Amino acid sequence: MKANIFLFDNFETLDVFGPVEVLGYVPDCQLQFVSCKGGIINSSQEVPVMTKKLDAENVSGLFFIPGGQGIRTLINDSETIALLKKAVQKAQYCLTVCTGSLALAKTGLLDGRKATSNKRAFEWVLSQKLPVLWERSARWTNDGEFYTSSGVSAGIDMTLGFTEDHFSRKIATDIAIRMEYMWNDDKTNDPFAACTTADL
Amino acid sequence: MKANIFLFDNFETLDVFGPVEVLGYVPDCQLQFVSCKGGIINSSQEVPVMTKKLDAENVSGLFFIPGGQGIRTLINDSETIALLKKAVQKAQYCLTVCTGSLALAKTGLLDGRKATSNKRAFEWVLSQKLPVLWERSARWTNDGEFYTSSGVSAGIDMTLGFTEDHFSRKIATDIAIRMEYMWNDDKTNDPFAACTTADL
Repeated sequence: MKANIFLFDNFETLDVFGPVEVLGYVPDCQLQFVSCKGGIINSSQEVPVMTKKLDAENVSGLFFIPGGQGIRTLINDSETIALLKKAVQKAQYCLTVCTGSLALAKTGLLDGRKATSNKRAFEWVLSQKLPVLWERSARWTNDGEFYTSSGVSAGIDMTLGFTEDHFSRKIATDIAIRMEYMWNDDKTNDPFAACTTADL
Repeated sequence: MKANIFLFDNFETLDVFGPVEVLGYVPDCQLQFVSCKGGIINSSQEVPVMTKKLDAENVSGLFFIPGGQGIRTLINDSETIALLKKAVQKAQYCLTVCTGSLALAKTGLLDGRKATSNKRAFEWVLSQKLPVLWERSARWTNDGEFYTSSGVSAGIDMTLGFTEDHFSRKIATDIAIRMEYMWNDDKTNDPFAACTTADL
């Protein structure tokens, strides 16, 4: 399986590299990092990652969209949203973390589907008034080919959940042990559901 | 505070980017990614990160060493170990994750100090017969300026613990909430202490 990890300036570091750690141990998963133009992309935490130019026509396998501060610009860039729409339509699965779900929602492909997002950004996500079945209390959601997670660390739990669903429980738990990670394997168990921007 | 994140080919992705996510929210912490020669360094999970050449003489603040498959080559490279020794001596604090502690141990600076490492690699670490007070059951250890953690995800718990020790409890818990991360804040609580290579 190919996994296309989509990056943009000011993505949230752990949104990406938690799931990437998991996918790196999924059997025969080939990762590549892509962006609109290719070249170095910097996270909000100043991580410079080399990317290839996204070739949306030739996407297959898994397409991954993180969240982060950069999403606030990205969702108003119609060219990027059109590119993402094409890439997601070509992919077999689409996984998003944090406000990455809002970028996916902007393509229209989440219309009428269940999804979640970062809890401290939830009011802002709702304010975009998109026809998505937003679930506030969810560590992650799955609706058909779409997996969306709550903020940052939740992406690790979701990617292990995706691994269980499409590979096996044994492969998912072995990866969690390898990472010395206490997997929250219940997508309805959301310890941060009540958080809001007012909490910090 | 400056934070120098030392990378080498085949570092473990989450060993680095869990702690980096935390440090990115520590007040006035400036991150930079360094390696022996500079340029692109690839993790075991195929993440290509741009680095600067490590200037050991001018290191200050925090020096960070991850673990991963690449450690097995690195610990036998006397030039790199000498460079790391100089950098760590210039730094105020040194944090390691997983088998990164073995690279630090090879410099001699951990002699007679408490440290831990990845549990599935623990027998291999012990087999190096270095005069370190290795603790098998520890999510992380702290001895003076040295913080060492168990495998992969444990680095997040340790870096939050470091933040509590040198900034404040409030800053550490706020960062954990921002990451929607269930912080294991007790360094003696090691759920993976009994794991060995035989487990996978």
